[in-house]
Amino acid sequence: MRTPGRLVSLKQPIFEIVTIGNELLIGKILNTNAHWLAKRITNLGGSVSRIIVVGDDVGNIVSVINDALGRRPDFVITIGGLGPTFDDKTLEAISKAFGKPLELNKQAYKLVKEKYLGYYETGLLKKFELTPSRLKMAKLPAGAKPLYNPVGTAPGIFLEHKGTILIALPGVPKEMQGIFEDDVAILVKRYTKNLFSCVESLRITGIVESEIAPLIDVVMRENPHVYIKSHPKAAEPTPLIELHFSATSDSEGLSENRVGKAIESISGKIIKKGGAVELLPA
Amino acid sequence: MRTPGRLVSLKQPIFEIVTIGNELLIGKILNTNAHWLAKRITNLGGSVSRIIVVGDDVGNIVSVINDALGRRPDFVITIGGLGPTFDDKTLEAISKAFGKPLELNKQAYKLVKEKYLGYYETGLLKKFELTPSRLKMAKLPAGAKPLYNPVGTAPGIFLEHKGTILIALPGVPKEMQGIFEDDVAILVKRYTKNLFSCVESLRITGIVESEIAPLIDVVMRENPHVYIKSHPKAAEPTPLIELHFSATSDSEGLSENRVGKAIESISGKIIKKGGAVELLPA
Repeated sequence: MRTPGRLVSLKQPIFEIVTIGNELLIGKILNTNAHWLAKRITNLGGSVSRIIVVGDDVGNIVSVINDALGRRPDFVITIGGLGPTFDDKTLEAISKAFGKPLELNKQAYKLVKEKYLGYYETGLLKKFELTPSRLKMAKLPAGAKPLYNPVGTAPGIFLEHKGTILIALPGVPKEMQGIFEDDVAILVKRYTKNLFSCVESLRITGIVESEIAPLIDVVMRENPHVYIKSHPKAAEPTPLIELHFSATSDSEGLSENRVGKAIESISGKIIKKGGAVELLPA
Repeated sequence: MRTPGRLVSLKQPIFEIVTIGNELLIGKILNTNAHWLAKRITNLGGSVSRIIVVGDDVGNIVSVINDALGRRPDFVITIGGLGPTFDDKTLEAISKAFGKPLELNKQAYKLVKEKYLGYYETGLLKKFELTPSRLKMAKLPAGAKPLYNPVGTAPGIFLEHKGTILIALPGVPKEMQGIFEDDVAILVKRYTKNLFSCVESLRITGIVESEIAPLIDVVMRENPHVYIKSHPKAAEPTPLIELHFSATSDSEGLSENRVGKAIESISGKIIKKGGAVELLPA
């Protein structure tokens, strides 16, 4: 059990990622945002437990956010739906899920106003106007804080609720990444600053996955702190498998040592069975 | 409300996709499987309402499957976790979620046995053996039917439960696609054979998203059967936006007609505001 409110902990903080947009559900675009964010969170020492894709429907987004909050992760990060169009419904959904009314946030208003003034001054807009569509981006759930968008217009938002931090990021990849790097990464590091992960991969050829399976079982039992994941890169009859090893601990040396022991042990067993093993570059 | 058991319906069948694998949660690989499947289901006339990514943990997979079944979609399709290694836990999770014990399925046993005999006969295996790791792929939840894998070893599975069809597919892309095309697409078509979708996209330049927002509102109100989605391809100050239009009905001509009317209407309004519009190839 994580001690509530304790920011420095040896337990990896748990993240849920919610990506919002019909374009993902119809297969129009690949979910590169979830991929980027999951990788970045993992690199920072966090653990992503679930990724959910939902469409631009307030009811569905509310239900996804409520379910996520109910599992009590440390962070829920939503991506998408913060822009000016009618199908940008994330703020309304967060407002409903948290029971916090949408209200004009002074700081967000200032950020949005300055953006449009800038677009006007550089000639991108013929007229400076804060239309309802534009003001929508400054109406945040009560208690939320805006996060400055270094690339586009819509601010991200930060909201804390019963020990879970909710972050909402826009869906344009560069905006999402910009806000994350500027304002969110540092928060994550507060949870993970004493954690060190080691991840290594092996490429195995000449032996099918069902022959490797019992070897992994043995090595996992002998190395309880190392997670090993077998990932067939081609259908089973073609023997090409990647094995991923990962360990997280409070010491860099210890994590590396644990992964190294597991790699040594399984490599020996695979070679004995006639397979070939190659360490992949990190 | 869909009439239970009625296979031909004018309502689009609802799908939830569950992709299983730690490699997705650590950002090691992009979820191209969910993307492929969502696109294929949309093309067949189905509607994907949610995509969920969960790790190789039986408890979490059970909870995701139970939640999905509780929403009463027409189909739940899982991807991944059907292979021979310890971290392939999907069958165990489905067994728990449905309360149907795992048992050796005669048909699945025959399929798996024939695969390994084939690998042995072609020299890929030195010895023909049905080890526990291999037999695992033939132990299905009671009542499930195996789906022949035309590419690799692990069969897919089919299971019906209170009006929802559960399909489990392996995670290797070519295997997943092969089983879907051979055995699942035809099932989907039974639900959608009287449905016709029309999807078109426009590329808009020279006008920012927040200026298009109120135009979309008007056109959506005038064209209630057309869904319009605004998709900024760059951060807001750079005016490059794609608009996607879609309509589904029981007549091809009607769907095309509805989309056509909406495109005509919005194009006129955008050009009047100084933007440029281009119809993208399908």
